[in-house]
Amino acid sequence: MRGVVMYAPGDVRVEDVPDATIIEPTDAVIRVSATCICGSDLWPYRGLQQVRGPSPMGHEYIGVVEQIGGAVRDIKVGDSVVGSFVASDNTCEICRAGYQSRCIHQVMIGSIGTQAELARIPLADGTLVPVPGEPTEAQKVSLLAASDVLGTGWFAAVAVEAGPGKTVAVVGDGAVGLLAILAAKRLGAERIIAMSRHADRQALAKTFGATDIVEERGADGVAAIKELTGGYGAHSVIEAVGTQEAMLQAIGATRPGGHIGYVGVSHGVELSGADLFFATVHLHGGPAPVRRFLPMLVDLIMTGEINPGAVFDMTLPLDRADDGYRAMDERRAIKVLLTM
Amino acid sequence: MRGVVMYAPGDVRVEDVPDATIIEPTDAVIRVSATCICGSDLWPYRGLQQVRGPSPMGHEYIGVVEQIGGAVRDIKVGDSVVGSFVASDNTCEICRAGYQSRCIHQVMIGSIGTQAELARIPLADGTLVPVPGEPTEAQKVSLLAASDVLGTGWFAAVAVEAGPGKTVAVVGDGAVGLLAILAAKRLGAERIIAMSRHADRQALAKTFGATDIVEERGADGVAAIKELTGGYGAHSVIEAVGTQEAMLQAIGATRPGGHIGYVGVSHGVELSGADLFFATVHLHGGPAPVRRFLPMLVDLIMTGEINPGAVFDMTLPLDRADDGYRAMDERRAIKVLLTM
Repeated sequence: MRGVVMYAPGDVRVEDVPDATIIEPTDAVIRVSATCICGSDLWPYRGLQQVRGPSPMGHEYIGVVEQIGGAVRDIKVGDSVVGSFVASDNTCEICRAGYQSRCIHQVMIGSIGTQAELARIPLADGTLVPVPGEPTEAQKVSLLAASDVLGTGWFAAVAVEAGPGKTVAVVGDGAVGLLAILAAKRLGAERIIAMSRHADRQALAKTFGATDIVEERGADGVAAIKELTGGYGAHSVIEAVGTQEAMLQAIGATRPGGHIGYVGVSHGVELSGADLFFATVHLHGGPAPVRRFLPMLVDLIMTGEINPGAVFDMTLPLDRADDGYRAMDERRAIKVLLTM
Repeated sequence: MRGVVMYAPGDVRVEDVPDATIIEPTDAVIRVSATCICGSDLWPYRGLQQVRGPSPMGHEYIGVVEQIGGAVRDIKVGDSVVGSFVASDNTCEICRAGYQSRCIHQVMIGSIGTQAELARIPLADGTLVPVPGEPTEAQKVSLLAASDVLGTGWFAAVAVEAGPGKTVAVVGDGAVGLLAILAAKRLGAERIIAMSRHADRQALAKTFGATDIVEERGADGVAAIKELTGGYGAHSVIEAVGTQEAMLQAIGATRPGGHIGYVGVSHGVELSGADLFFATVHLHGGPAPVRRFLPMLVDLIMTGEINPGAVFDMTLPLDRADDGYRAMDERRAIKVLLTM
């Protein structure tokens, strides 16, 4: 099969690799209908995360089940499915509490790779969600978004308790930040402030429900949020970047007693305990338990309630994945869809 | 009046100081019935926090109102009162959301000092809670505990969502940690693990509701908590110390999706964003909004439902405050009450 392999920072190739096969009896193999490139794939691409030899890439996927292992009960060959970027048993205490991304049997799908024609999905019964009916092309794209960026944005919006009467600020205008806006809007937030300095992303933020745009960053960004919130700061701030600057901006922009949801994969962030103590905020984040939200998200997409697929602004065939990485690295694309 | 003044680490004196008087029209002056020494007073006493010249000490108090400023409406001369260690207007948006410790007009009572015969309490209407009826001596002692350590322990237990079905671990066996156990028990926690290696504190922890004792610290302490919780970690961990070791112990002992409440004043703590990200826990803490809980705590004490005053295991006259600091520093006393 064809599959994307990263050899080193900036060096992404599409090659013939061995076909995905069943290894564990709880596995399924899916024929990938569509996959995409994630902001987190850019960390190794940019050399900010080590690449340990040639690595299969990708952790977002929709597809059709082609084979199942002997222990798979709920998923059937021929099912249209979507799954999260973390395989989970969905039965352990951690999963049942809604933290499937930290399942005691978790497998990171990124270590297997879904930027390929076929993908092995471990713990298929606990990981995959069948899609009812026949999705349209637009719905397929939205389902693919649910696999990570929508689910992650949704988790962030839930983590900050976005809801009626709340002002939510979003640091980061990548796909996750933009979809956190969509989620906050669906959860009933009164005011949603997008922090962005790119006209195209600002426009999409508004489509998804942003009521205000703040272009300033750092201390100026914090001051702008305070000015918009009567000096108090936002009730809820979503940090969808993962850098020190973004995290400090989030902490500074949150009112005492408010909530910060951090879903940008943390790179080099160091927090002072004393600063956190006196900020008196709630902090919650980490790898999003997308599986918690997937059945509901599939339903919202299939009933036409939401259109998260709008974050994809470039589509390429799998064989041109390297062009997609470059476009996202250079911020010429928000998110790149790869077709088979 | 007589008042405690700290000159330098280890140098606490009781001296004649100017009588407390009304400065702002929103002030009250109370005649202090009882005050006490806080674990946080030990940070400067031990030289771990700077002492900038002779400083009045103390922020916990019960007393009788002796004078009120012209703008005080709800508090009357002669009222028996208790108040929090942070003066708050109790009307701003932050206060109304329950974060009176971060009121936009907050005044730290510790900057004024209550280890004295009289104390000026700013924002009297928003800060003081009148005590109904005539408290017994035991109730007075418990009301004094409510001023900080009980209110802080209660905040921690609420912050970690202690409740039915939950296992709560408490790092720190000082007065706050012990009273967090009492609070977790009242909130319905199923299992409460006290981390303590002192027999007298272990006994009090059990009186307050601890079901298990863990003596190990650091990685061994984390392993012991995991062993007691089926390998998952506790649902809720309260950090009532403020050191790096205690905070890392708390993070390590909490299951993914669980809650950490940190109420030990943070000293020298540095947290790795990546470690926090992959821990996937909820973090909340800071200076406790004791005022949020005070009316309820006064009621629980005056109806005999709780006896938090049991944390006081040494009583000294104000003039022997230096002996009290020494006893707490040497951990010969959990908490020292000072009488007039």
